[in-house]
Amino acid sequence: MRALVFDKSLSFQPRHPEPAAAGGDSLVRVRQAGVCSTDLEIVKGYMGFTGVLGHEFVGEVVSSPDKDLIGQRVCGEINVVCGRCDLCLSGLSSHCRNRSVLGILNHDGAFAEFLRLPAINLHVLPKTVDDDAAVFVEPLAAAFQVLKQVQIDARKWVTVLGDGRLGLLVAQVLRDAGCPVRVIGKHPEKLALCEKWQIRARPLADIVPRHDQDVVVDCTGSAAGLEMAIQMVRPRGTVVLKSTVATGKAMNLAPVVIDEINIVGSRCGPFREAIRALAEKRVDVTSLIHRRMKLEQGVEAMQLAERPGVLKVIVTMES
Amino acid sequence: MRALVFDKSLSFQPRHPEPAAAGGDSLVRVRQAGVCSTDLEIVKGYMGFTGVLGHEFVGEVVSSPDKDLIGQRVCGEINVVCGRCDLCLSGLSSHCRNRSVLGILNHDGAFAEFLRLPAINLHVLPKTVDDDAAVFVEPLAAAFQVLKQVQIDARKWVTVLGDGRLGLLVAQVLRDAGCPVRVIGKHPEKLALCEKWQIRARPLADIVPRHDQDVVVDCTGSAAGLEMAIQMVRPRGTVVLKSTVATGKAMNLAPVVIDEINIVGSRCGPFREAIRALAEKRVDVTSLIHRRMKLEQGVEAMQLAERPGVLKVIVTMES
Repeated sequence: MRALVFDKSLSFQPRHPEPAAAGGDSLVRVRQAGVCSTDLEIVKGYMGFTGVLGHEFVGEVVSSPDKDLIGQRVCGEINVVCGRCDLCLSGLSSHCRNRSVLGILNHDGAFAEFLRLPAINLHVLPKTVDDDAAVFVEPLAAAFQVLKQVQIDARKWVTVLGDGRLGLLVAQVLRDAGCPVRVIGKHPEKLALCEKWQIRARPLADIVPRHDQDVVVDCTGSAAGLEMAIQMVRPRGTVVLKSTVATGKAMNLAPVVIDEINIVGSRCGPFREAIRALAEKRVDVTSLIHRRMKLEQGVEAMQLAERPGVLKVIVTMES
Repeated sequence: MRALVFDKSLSFQPRHPEPAAAGGDSLVRVRQAGVCSTDLEIVKGYMGFTGVLGHEFVGEVVSSPDKDLIGQRVCGEINVVCGRCDLCLSGLSSHCRNRSVLGILNHDGAFAEFLRLPAINLHVLPKTVDDDAAVFVEPLAAAFQVLKQVQIDARKWVTVLGDGRLGLLVAQVLRDAGCPVRVIGKHPEKLALCEKWQIRARPLADIVPRHDQDVVVDCTGSAAGLEMAIQMVRPRGTVVLKSTVATGKAMNLAPVVIDEINIVGSRCGPFREAIRALAEKRVDVTSLIHRRMKLEQGVEAMQLAERPGVLKVIVTMES
């Protein structure tokens, strides 16, 4: 099959082996998939991954042990878990000790004609969620995860730091939860997008951090983001850390102790809530689509997604 | 008066000016004071402090607007707060935006014959807490703060990382709260002290971090402690950060995001609970006293406290 493969370098492969769907697996014919910052970090060495990239997808089930799934249009949760380790048994299966992760860890991903996932990972999409919206289910679920970790209400002062792909989703989810959130970013056209959604937005250059926010969600995708977030949050406030970056940065964490700040790492989230929000049009994702490119141009698609200011690049599998 | 002063370098000053007690202040004749790792960090540049060091003390009230305090034996809370800022008014007065901190920030400290503090900061000591125990009230309160921030119970797996002054207090507080805590350290004689208290203790060299602890309290006082703690804590677990160090360290925080770890900074704590624990002998502090030295030997006392394996050095004001 055709696939976009990372193995020390990134390349389009016209004849990559098709995934062999094991016992509980479903085989999915991918329609399209979104480029995520994690993909870009993997190419820089994050996770040490080798294989087919991509984890934000929509496709049709070709074969499955669950006959009801066959022919259905689905998206899929990316953590493939064992169900038997201490974490799975204690309700933390997204942290399964034996997990593989679609396109990220020991499991070929979605920038290919086919992928395999356990039937239990798949979510059938309602007609009200079209293919473009469907590729946002996974990152939108990650945005909803913030609500699972931090109590948000209308009286809280909340800042989303970063106006990239994830930041703009997190901002919309928080606003949808009734929080008068503010977005701090670097890109005028993205900040304008926030204003269109009636979300307050300010350029980073205008900000003097005042240690006054109840919650700061770091979606910068940069090692410098956390330092800024720590300066913006109030004592005993919470910084939600969403950015995974390949490289570290020397930083002094004394302010975390002095101000008794809470830093919460946040990763994957609830698919059902993301699908419902998209079905009910509570979140605008179509405005985030920058360009649609064919799998054959996958390398260029990744390069494009890397450029400052570029939002979602979608890779389509049509030949 | 005699005082131990830091001003670019540390020196004993035989004729330092006595503190002028302002309106609401009490004047305290210091009996003795403990050397804390924070003092050692200040000498390395932490907080940019200049003045009399020391913040763990016991003394007698010489003058006070509160007549009942005069002549009483007291210890004192170190944060001098305004009572009017947003944080004071919202119940976070230990984080007062206009605070000074005894011996740490814009307020001369306890390594001197006299210090001043607002009457509201002082706690009268019961006879059951002797002068040696009294110098531990402040750090023991900081240890109790962990219980205010993390839910601890007998079923939790909790590790205290670091067998220094603070680590050994935190371990005793957690044990006292019913938690089967484990201490990881580098010093055989301190680990033996834990065993004496019936607290499990293991040398750092024997530890293979397994991402399996519910809570890890980092009391290492080193920038490397947090990295180890992150490797020891389970996904969605909590790292309590107690170490304030003058210098940072480059570290990759991706594991915090991937494992959705909670990092909580922790600083000052409840004096009343610390005094009660000392009065009821629920915590052993006398075993932690390494040596008692006179104020005139203050510079040597600080050097001694810096040596690996040395626990509490007490500076006495007797001439």
